[in-house]
Parts: sequence; structure tokens; C-alpha cells
Amino acid sequence: MRQSHLFTKTRKEAPADETSISAKLLIRAGFVFKEQAGVYSMLPLGVLVQNKIVAIVRQAMNAIGGQEVAMTSLQDPELWKTTDRWDDAKVDNWFKTKLKNDTEIGLAFTHEEALTRIMRNYVGSYRDLPKFVYQFQTKFRNELRAKSGLLRGREFLMKDLYSFTKDTADLEAFYERAAAAYTQIYATVGLGEVTHRTFASGGVFSKFSDEFQVVCDSGEDTIYLSSKGGMAVNKEVYTDDILAELGLQKSDMREVRAIEVGNIFKLGTKYSAPLGLTYTDEHGTAKPVVMGSYGIGVGRLLATIIEVHADDHGMIWPAAVAPFPVHLVRLGDDPKVSAAADNLVAALAKRGIEVLDDDREMSPGQKFTDSDLIGIPTRVVVSAKTLAAKKLEVKDRATGAVEMMTTPQLLKRLKA
Amino acid sequence: MRQSHLFTKTRKEAPADETSISAKLLIRAGFVFKEQAGVYSMLPLGVLVQNKIVAIVRQAMNAIGGQEVAMTSLQDPELWKTTDRWDDAKVDNWFKTKLKNDTEIGLAFTHEEALTRIMRNYVGSYRDLPKFVYQFQTKFRNELRAKSGLLRGREFLMKDLYSFTKDTADLEAFYERAAAAYTQIYATVGLGEVTHRTFASGGVFSKFSDEFQVVCDSGEDTIYLSSKGGMAVNKEVYTDDILAELGLQKSDMREVRAIEVGNIFKLGTKYSAPLGLTYTDEHGTAKPVVMGSYGIGVGRLLATIIEVHADDHGMIWPAAVAPFPVHLVRLGDDPKVSAAADNLVAALAKRGIEVLDDDREMSPGQKFTDSDLIGIPTRVVVSAKTLAAKKLEVKDRATGAVEMMTTPQLLKRLKA
Repeated sequence: MRQSHLFTKTRKEAPADETSISAKLLIRAGFVFKEQAGVYSMLPLGVLVQNKIVAIVRQAMNAIGGQEVAMTSLQDPELWKTTDRWDDAKVDNWFKTKLKNDTEIGLAFTHEEALTRIMRNYVGSYRDLPKFVYQFQTKFRNELRAKSGLLRGREFLMKDLYSFTKDTADLEAFYERAAAAYTQIYATVGLGEVTHRTFASGGVFSKFSDEFQVVCDSGEDTIYLSSKGGMAVNKEVYTDDILAELGLQKSDMREVRAIEVGNIFKLGTKYSAPLGLTYTDEHGTAKPVVMGSYGIGVGRLLATIIEVHADDHGMIWPAAVAPFPVHLVRLGDDPKVSAAADNLVAALAKRGIEVLDDDREMSPGQKFTDSDLIGIPTRVVVSAKTLAAKKLEVKDRATGAVEMMTTPQLLKRLKA
Repeated sequence: MRQSHLFTKTRKEAPADETSISAKLLIRAGFVFKEQAGVYSMLPLGVLVQNKIVAIVRQAMNAIGGQEVAMTSLQDPELWKTTDRWDDAKVDNWFKTKLKNDTEIGLAFTHEEALTRIMRNYVGSYRDLPKFVYQFQTKFRNELRAKSGLLRGREFLMKDLYSFTKDTADLEAFYERAAAAYTQIYATVGLGEVTHRTFASGGVFSKFSDEFQVVCDSGEDTIYLSSKGGMAVNKEVYTDDILAELGLQKSDMREVRAIEVGNIFKLGTKYSAPLGLTYTDEHGTAKPVVMGSYGIGVGRLLATIIEVHADDHGMIWPAAVAPFPVHLVRLGDDPKVSAAADNLVAALAKRGIEVLDDDREMSPGQKFTDSDLIGIPTRVVVSAKTLAAKKLEVKDRATGAVEMMTTPQLLKRLKA
């Protein structure tokens, strides 16, 4: 994509009320636009990153047997009254609105109730189980405060998967497969080393749920990391009794701040029982379906990647989620430079490598500043100087290392 | 995809309050679930079709220079007061809700205001124009009545593109390119012959807008088709004066019902002027940006395809938007049949052709009935009988024609 074609531009300042590093950088680099507190529109470079994250998560969900749906935001109160989650005294982050006939309706903050009702139409026998159903869908949450940028939005894209199994053993088996898929997702998007599966509070059905926590000073959560074996415990369940139960020593634990980038939860029959989602087992007995839920906030994950991967000059995108793998910077208006740059773009396109092509009339310094801010992993400079050397100048955004190399050498490096 | 893996099933009945043919068939075949009037969740087969339509439209928008964004549903009233579109007396289909601090906010029914504000950050000079920006985004419209299934939803996915140009000449040029792209989209999804570009009422800036109307008895609109040259006029502008202006004779016009599957609109400076979206021209003069808007409702388009392509047995998907190109029906539990069917699936997968593979234990009659209802273009039967004949039984869903052929012949046919 030619950068002169892109409608966004970088800017020096972020909105004064924005405190999160990721939101500031994403706004300054033109990836997102702040509509109001906790409400962000995605601009073209942001859409490209978001689509890459969605594709990575979708592939992982399909690999564990997930089937994709797209449920609605508008929700019928009757459904939520059945599970006692309509009353604002019980759930404090509803956005509610009204139909023309004055009927109250809600905007979904999650979809357990909605999907359980759908499944009631399709699950009858044990032969219909297990099923795993997921979506990428906008969630609305009426947060009292929304000061953390994209880390805690009032409107955000979420991947939510729900499992439907006949018993606890099948739930446990799928739960571990989902946990492994999550671990793989965080590794792919560049957060493998800083993400910890963390014991958190469970609920009626299960003592614990599992959170995936990214260690990061800007996190809202406090967790305790064991120096032995990498186990982690959320502050909310960090008691002497639970440490003993988990075989952990307080002296081995270190308190850190963290961002929750995913959670998985054994729901059991919490929703299936009141909503009447039952199946008939091998002996003809009706039983409630056993459920689990598995969430990843796409916008929060996108922002967390930047909270972890940034420096004073800007963002540093891991390769798998970068808006483009290569940022080409053309310097000067020498026709020979233009021709060489065009040839490079064509050579990369032929191999399926897309380029953000900085063809703007602008000083080298401004172009380099913008390139560092946008944070594409590999910057390639084509200029009179590089032409004279018959090489390209290639900079690794993460390490800052600059090397002169030929086009074949660049291609080899991008393949690696 | 194995059909036994799919969590949805077909059913004999649609909800009693559902009158639209497309909604009835989509519900019965398990493509969508009706949450409430005008509110439909997409189930796996529906998601597959929707994703194909989105991909076709996205490619067409990129080809005319569109850049993709994803704006928010939550909207700041102040922005809409500027253009006098906040008051319920002016716009009667808002869904409005409130933040925790009691501030009123709206759910976007369109995005002219939101995008114009975003563009104000990036457009300064004539050099920044033209720009074309689009999204696929959920729209909320508080319709008084919602009795037409997916044809008029309260919550639906829409592609909306907005053009930003320096003058009317550039707007006109892009407008015609967008119209040509729309015509191509309708042809690709199987509506080419029944879709008519139709004169409709314009607004302050332009006498006419253009609608794309699909001739169909279940349509809510009335249009007049000329028997000479295919011109069409919406009833709302069907006057003697306008017919004379367009050079049309009343005696050549035929009244038909139609479904509006797209509209394009010259906005001029209607939004840029009040919202202050200006640019500096070549002479240093500040001027308001000239805008246009271009919409396609994805859910309505999906439903319209079925309103046009269906028979008493079910849906008939055009190839480009079918959930799968092939529906394989296995008959009987002979291991030789299973092996032959498995081999066929593998041979098709090798060529990138995905199959809905009916591996369910069910009578042939029920499988055929389901296959006709789901409406995949090519049905292939593998049974003891076809094995004995060393051929496959291949049925064309649209024509009903059944042929016996070899696997290479099937591959050739699917390629065509």
C-alpha cells in the first residue's frame, strides 16, 4: 500500500486524557481514533492488525473443533431474567435501550444465555454432544470508568467460545485443549514469554477458573508468580489455604502487575439448568448439558502487544500481527530510486509479501520518525546512497540493527 | 465439514410470526436463528454465506480505492446535534442508551457524522484528496415494525463507503465507478439479471440518488421499469415532469415490486459544512470537502438472494455465495461406500474444494430433503448403486438435472 494513499497520518500528540501507552501510540500512529472514553474506531492500519489477530484466533478455534456463529447485540430481557442476570443490581454494566413500543432490551455484554437458548433447538441426545461454538462479536460493557484505553473498552471485539459436553470429564478434556490453544495463540502474537496461566476464582461449579495474564507494569491485575515452574495465582485467591492446596510456598512467590488477555471458565450447569438445555443420555435419562466458556478480548490483546512491545520511539509489532511485514522508505526524487523501489515492491508482491510503501514527499528524518512510530518489523531504505552501494539498507525495528544487503538476502531474511 | 459435526439441524417449521420466504427457509435450514422480530443471529452455514458476500464486496471496494476501517456503534450526541440528526423528531429510528453517569449516547444507524469527524484530523490540503473509506459494521435501527425477516432488520451488518473529494467533478467520477462496482457485485452474487439501477429522490445537493433494486414480488418498494433500455424509476419520483426530464414515456413503463439492495448518494457538503471538514485548494482558499455515501446491507442482500433463488423444496444458492460448492450425500453403511466417499472428499480438498459431507445415520429420503432445503449448488451421491456403476450421481440443485459421471468429470464440472 502506498503511504500517500493511506488517509491517516501520524501525529505528535495523543488526546490529553489518554494515559495508556498503547492507546497513545495507536492514536499517534493513526491505527485508532478515540470516539469517547473507552470507545475506539479502528483505522486502516488498526484494521489490518485486528484482522491478523482474528485470523490467528479463528484458526486456533477451528483446530479444536469450534464452529463459528455471529450472535446479536440486542437481547431479550426475558432470557436474562431466567438466569437472574437482567437486574442492574446483579449485573452492573448493562447498556439498556428500548424498542419503539417501549419494551426494554439490552446490549449483550456476553452470550451464555443467548447461545444456550439457540442450542436448545439442536441438542436432544448424547449423540449431539460435544459441540463447541464461537464467534467474534462486539461486546458492550457500561464501565463506570474507562481510563485504560483499549485495555478496558465500553465497546470491543471479543472472541467467545462456549463448550457443550455431556459430563465433567468431557468438559475437563476440552478445557485443557482450549488452554493449550490459548497458550499457542499468545506465543504466536509475540506474548509467549510474558503470559502465564493463572489460578483465579471459579464459581459455583469449579473452585478455580484460569486466566491468561501478561506480566506488565501497566496491568490492572495483581498476580503472584512462582519462581519454581512458572505457576501463577491471582491476588483474589492468594490465601494460605489455596497456596497449600496448590503446593506453593509463599517465599517463592513474587507479586507483579498483569493484564488479563484471556480467561477460561468451567460453567457446569449454571446456565443449562435454568434455561432447560438438557440431553437424553444412553439410558434415556434427561440431564443438563455441562458447559464452559472461553474468552479473548481482541482489542485488549492488540493493545497489550503494544504495552509489551514498544520503546520511546514507538510501537514494535511482532511479525505475525504487524500491519505489513515491510516498511519501504524511499528517499529523494531521483527516478532511479523510484524505479529501484518499484522493482523491489514488485519482487516482494510476487512472493506474497505486502509492503507499506512510503512514497510521500517528506524529509528523511520525518519518514524515519514515522516508521519507528508505526513499528513495522523490517524497514528497508532505497536511496541514491543504497543504489550506489548496490544494496538495500535494512533495519530491524526491534533490535535497531541496520545492515546493508541485496534483494535476495532480504527475501531470505523475510522468509525466515 | 462433516454434517454430523455441524451443531445445527434442519426443521420442518419456521416461527409462526415469520412471513418472509427467505427468513423461513434460512431458519428451517439452520442458517439463522430468530432472537426477536428484526434481530437474527447467524449460525455456521449463515456465517459461511455472509463471509463470502463480505469477501466479494470487500474486493470490489478495494478495487475502486477503498480503505477499510471499523467505526463504533456508540455515538456521542454532540456530534449529531451539529448536523441536527439527534432529535427523535428528526430521526425516528435511533436506539439510545446511557452511560453510568447518565449521559445519553446513541447506537449508530449510519456513520456520516462519525467518519467526517475522523477525516477532519487527516484532511488539510487538496493533496489529501480524494479518499474513499469503507467498513463492514453492525447498524442498529429502531424500526417501528420488523416483519420482513432479514430484509429489514433492527440490527444488521452493512457495508458503508464514504467518498471525500475536492469538487463535484471528482465526486461524479467516483460515483460512476462505485455504481459500476455495485453492478458487478450484484452480478457476482447471482442477481445480475434482476437488479436495476433506479432513479430515486436525491436531497439538497442532487436531484436524484441511485438505488439498486431487485425485482421481486416480496419487495417493499414500488418501481417502474422501462421496456426500452432497462431504465428504472422509484415511485417516489415517478411524476410526469421527471419522466419527461429522463426522456421516458409512461406507456413504456411497467410497475413492479422490488427490494432495494444498495443505494448511492451524492451528499455534497451536507455533512462537511456543519462539521467543518474543509481543505485548502491550490490557491490557498479553504473549501468544504464534497462527499458521497454508498451502502449495501449484507444481511438484506443475503436474504434477497434467497427471495429470488428458491423453490418449493428450499434455497438455491448461486455458486459464488453458497456455503459449500458441493454437498456429498453418503447412503448406507457399506465400508466400501465410506471409503469411496472419503476418497472423493480428499480429492476435492486437494483442489481446494470444500464439501458439506452428509455422514449422518439417516434415511436417504431425509438426506435428500435436507440437501434440497440447504440448497448447495451441486449434490453428489455415493452409494452401493453408484459404486456398482463406477460413477457418481451428480444433481444440479438449480435445474434438478441428475447425471452419472466419474470423479474427473465432476472435477471438470466444478472448475467450469
